[in-house]
Amino acid sequence: MKTNLIKHIAVFTSGGDSPGMNAALYAIAKAAEKNSIKLTGIKKGYEGLIDGDFINLEAHQLQKLTQKGGTILKTARSKRFMELEGRKKALKTLKENNIDALIAIGGDGTFRGLLAFSEICDIPVIGIPGTIDNDICGTDFTLGFDSAVNTAIENIDKIRDTAESHNRVFIVEVMGRDSGYIAIYSGLVVGADAILIPESAQDYIQLLNKIKNYESEEAFIVVVSEGDELGAELVATKIKEMNSDVELRITRIGHVQRGGNPTALDRMLGIRFGVAAVEALIQSKKNVMVGIVKNQLHFTPFEEVIKQHQINNELKQLLVLFEK
Amino acid sequence: MKTNLIKHIAVFTSGGDSPGMNAALYAIAKAAEKNSIKLTGIKKGYEGLIDGDFINLEAHQLQKLTQKGGTILKTARSKRFMELEGRKKALKTLKENNIDALIAIGGDGTFRGLLAFSEICDIPVIGIPGTIDNDICGTDFTLGFDSAVNTAIENIDKIRDTAESHNRVFIVEVMGRDSGYIAIYSGLVVGADAILIPESAQDYIQLLNKIKNYESEEAFIVVVSEGDELGAELVATKIKEMNSDVELRITRIGHVQRGGNPTALDRMLGIRFGVAAVEALIQSKKNVMVGIVKNQLHFTPFEEVIKQHQINNELKQLLVLFEK
Amino acid sequence: MKTNLIKHIAVFTSGGDSPGMNAALYAIAKAAEKNSIKLTGIKKGYEGLIDGDFINLEAHQLQKLTQKGGTILKTARSKRFMELEGRKKALKTLKENNIDALIAIGGDGTFRGLLAFSEICDIPVIGIPGTIDNDICGTDFTLGFDSAVNTAIENIDKIRDTAESHNRVFIVEVMGRDSGYIAIYSGLVVGADAILIPESAQDYIQLLNKIKNYESEEAFIVVVSEGDELGAELVATKIKEMNSDVELRITRIGHVQRGGNPTALDRMLGIRFGVAAVEALIQSKKNVMVGIVKNQLHFTPFEEVIKQHQINNELKQLLVLFEK
Amino acid sequence: MKTNLIKHIAVFTSGGDSPGMNAALYAIAKAAEKNSIKLTGIKKGYEGLIDGDFINLEAHQLQKLTQKGGTILKTARSKRFMELEGRKKALKTLKENNIDALIAIGGDGTFRGLLAFSEICDIPVIGIPGTIDNDICGTDFTLGFDSAVNTAIENIDKIRDTAESHNRVFIVEVMGRDSGYIAIYSGLVVGADAILIPESAQDYIQLLNKIKNYESEEAFIVVVSEGDELGAELVATKIKEMNSDVELRITRIGHVQRGGNPTALDRMLGIRFGVAAVEALIQSKKNVMVGIVKNQLHFTPFEEVIKQHQINNELKQLLVLFEK
Repeated sequence: MKTNLIKHIAVFTSGGDSPGMNAALYAIAKAAEKNSIKLTGIKKGYEGLIDGDFINLEAHQLQKLTQKGGTILKTARSKRFMELEGRKKALKTLKENNIDALIAIGGDGTFRGLLAFSEICDIPVIGIPGTIDNDICGTDFTLGFDSAVNTAIENIDKIRDTAESHNRVFIVEVMGRDSGYIAIYSGLVVGADAILIPESAQDYIQLLNKIKNYESEEAFIVVVSEGDELGAELVATKIKEMNSDVELRITRIGHVQRGGNPTALDRMLGIRFGVAAVEALIQSKKNVMVGIVKNQLHFTPFEEVIKQHQINNELKQLLVLFEK
Repeated sequence: MKTNLIKHIAVFTSGGDSPGMNAALYAIAKAAEKNSIKLTGIKKGYEGLIDGDFINLEAHQLQKLTQKGGTILKTARSKRFMELEGRKKALKTLKENNIDALIAIGGDGTFRGLLAFSEICDIPVIGIPGTIDNDICGTDFTLGFDSAVNTAIENIDKIRDTAESHNRVFIVEVMGRDSGYIAIYSGLVVGADAILIPESAQDYIQLLNKIKNYESEEAFIVVVSEGDELGAELVATKIKEMNSDVELRITRIGHVQRGGNPTALDRMLGIRFGVAAVEALIQSKKNVMVGIVKNQLHFTPFEEVIKQHQINNELKQLLVLFEK
Repeated sequence: MKTNLIKHIAVFTSGGDSPGMNAALYAIAKAAEKNSIKLTGIKKGYEGLIDGDFINLEAHQLQKLTQKGGTILKTARSKRFMELEGRKKALKTLKENNIDALIAIGGDGTFRGLLAFSEICDIPVIGIPGTIDNDICGTDFTLGFDSAVNTAIENIDKIRDTAESHNRVFIVEVMGRDSGYIAIYSGLVVGADAILIPESAQDYIQLLNKIKNYESEEAFIVVVSEGDELGAELVATKIKEMNSDVELRITRIGHVQRGGNPTALDRMLGIRFGVAAVEALIQSKKNVMVGIVKNQLHFTPFEEVIKQHQINNELKQLLVLFEK
Repeated sequence: MKTNLIKHIAVFTSGGDSPGMNAALYAIAKAAEKNSIKLTGIKKGYEGLIDGDFINLEAHQLQKLTQKGGTILKTARSKRFMELEGRKKALKTLKENNIDALIAIGGDGTFRGLLAFSEICDIPVIGIPGTIDNDICGTDFTLGFDSAVNTAIENIDKIRDTAESHNRVFIVEVMGRDSGYIAIYSGLVVGADAILIPESAQDYIQLLNKIKNYESEEAFIVVVSEGDELGAELVATKIKEMNSDVELRITRIGHVQRGGNPTALDRMLGIRFGVAAVEALIQSKKNVMVGIVKNQLHFTPFEEVIKQHQINNELKQLLVLFEK
């Protein structure tokens, strides 16, 4: 058995918060405790890393917080860390506090920061993919995605009640930034009549035809991703331009998708990721993200993580099949 | 014991649907069955009343639907019923089908229709207040209000998770049309920092000051009613005009407030209203709405029902107290 | 305007916890703050009162906890307070800490304690009815009842899914100690086929006949109160003794009814009760419980509070009507 | 492209119902429709298969039922199908109705039936693993498991509220028959203090020590599987035998774990399984179960499916780590 050289780990959450982050913190604390490693929590992401805004973390306190959404470490976006000077200051802060390993939980932007940091940082860093968008390479699921989808579908199920009572057409917008994952998952599982995602070109003429032909005794539900060139407002405008008689209702599920108690899956992902991150550090891994690929732990270098994420093939085929 | 002259009741739901309508239908069916009264369901509100779009309703089928949101009778808005001719046609349809009493479940617009109908209709009519807006005179609570408020607060609780993780300011819009009831209730019980309702003038300068002074380690949550001269977008615009540096997030809870399984309170209200409506008809009441005033059944003539609804005094005082 | 002689209030929660207690604490803190009254929290009910286990409470901290079930002050049962010596010690502790008014939140047992305490205590005390059982005289609803009923019906709705898939008979036990309120409310609103409460004699022969005659294509759901002479096990045994061929499934909803985020109604009740308790003290009221009667605030002396609570007449009649 | 020889598929659900079965039916109907295959629904599992209790299924009707728990086809256990004569009758019924392929959704017992049926049945059969227990070989997740775990943890989260308010010890029993999967998943993600499963020997002395040493300011939560030699009652009895002073509360989550709206994951599993089952039949597969292994579709012969299922290694290690 190798001697563990890691004596003091620091952890932070960064970027948009996502459900399951607190479960990951609990698991990190538990794994650290078992390996006699001191654990420091960094508040507000890179900002707290630069400023040394630290708190002590113990498994015992975190145990009852697995059910809680958000992140008790808080999170923030940091302009200073985008500059080399900020990153140098962060490294200095880590060294002054005798921290010999770092765990970062966040999304796309967080990993860009980690990649830049790795150029100057000689302390090992492990990343955990925490974002509701499921748009990170190197993992089949990100921490928070399942919770966001479940929040979305619970809301869409409610919309169906009122939509069916009125035989109405609803355009429902879900989150995901540039990624259609939340839209595909939530759209398929609520039995949506159409699903629009940023990864595909939209055929608004076909959509209008579907709407005009839908059984007037039923609801018609369109699930659409947010996005610069998509979103419920834009879709409604396009349809209205073609046919101003069509009655549409618009609902944006909105920020509620980021909050709420995490689902079992996200809590379990948080636990798996958290334990794996600590064990990876003990095994001298560095500058990799822990992910879940084919339901097994998998490590990916930061430079691979930030590449363009794709919708997997089985999902794409399901999307074609369920298009009427 | 008086002889029951009512042999055949018809019931419809009209206007916006609201959670609890199916429970009311179950109770009407049960009370009708006990009194050997035939019950006919009219589909799509006044539209089905005019056209004779009828189905048979039995307690046995409805029993398991108390938990279901929306209305199995469907609902619609009817232009034709706004015309005398439409109402005459409706009366003719009722007579041709040997219907000797009518129960209507709906909101403000529905009761305006009933008042107009009562001028020509010699068949007794009882109304049940079904709307999430709680804006009907003659009842402390409308059917669906409690469910809408609970849906709103579950969503705002989730927003608090993410708002606190980022120390953000959120402007959250809830429904209620011209009534601030949903905003007051949901705002007070989620611990909102400010609550804006159409019944009061807004002091945007004070609101901006509160936002600027809020403890930066916390979330700041504003709950605001929808409305022609209110709503989250407008509030955000006003604040931004005064100070463009303030960062705001906007969320509209939206149509989900109309759907979802009704709460216990709304199902119970539906049951109480439904049974009372049938019993009122048996007792020869007519052209009144059954409501709940001071937690007791209460009947109000249609012309009183449509008057301007007010926020009660205790609530107003609470609103003042909880304004920081 | 009268001068407020109250400068320092202490508050505790006692007996079984119930959802909404934290909202009441928030409201008490807010009302105290507005009136420049210091607020002290007593931990673990009468135990903390005797031992001086105190914490400082501020509205600001409590604001975000309205959504949280349980009580942040914790609660406990106290044998020592049942003795005169314990109560004397409690009074001494209050005086030593310059506390000049007391608010107690709890159920039946708590009010028995308050009544005994009032014999020696010259400090004004106001009670708030906090129990899921809804068995307190002087209030139409206790704090936590609505949440418990909603938790019960969400679970029974789920049981209906599986019961209907198998056409099964389920005996579902809900809480309420000696009171049938939770059973009546939850039974009526889930469309139960039979409801058994401790306030009525049970006719097991009739129940068996109903079960034998139920439509075999449906579920059959019995909702039964817990109780020394009731409960799901006992009902099942009685039925089985008469006819061992009947297949029954038993489910006890159990302690989950005490927990979970409070509903809007319970949070609002907590807010109304909390504000009213502080204002009552300022108005020199003492040794009364604040309740809600006919949807209005109402004060009842402790000796009335602990009398035998009754099921109201409208509910009793509904129970008869919905018995098949 | 191969010619599709399948013209008429029949589908049934069997054994215990599980959330997600309706989503699977929707997907089967959609895939059948796309391939111009007629779809017949068989009611009540093997019973309806023997008796020809059939209904027509169309994607259009099923689309809005993805959110619904239970199974609209109903389910039952069948003694007759355990006899060769019953199975012969079933085959005859299939042939008389010109059914040329069969899809079965169910658990362990269902697959034993399918294996026996395959000895005489020359019609191709595909199985889908539908059970909350996650105890089927050939799939990482069964349909319904994720929903059951989420229902369990929502309830345990509520119990934590009351447990923490009282600093109590709770023994919470979850389902799973002989499999500890639900207990491991739900126990880990709620931050349980101990998790007892049938796959491991129990060390009650160690458990008692943990209980005696737990921080008295906290809750202590034990999650335990049901089972012939396990379950909350038995665990409580063992502890009490060793030390009768320990105060314990017992809660069985019970049948609610079988019901309720399926989670996103289970609905998606249902969709993936349903589409894959139809496509497998078109590709001439037979007598295999479709599962999900390493997040990819996977087919396993019936004789492999019914072998003893194991807890995977990563989970076992987590269980060791999170034992205090």
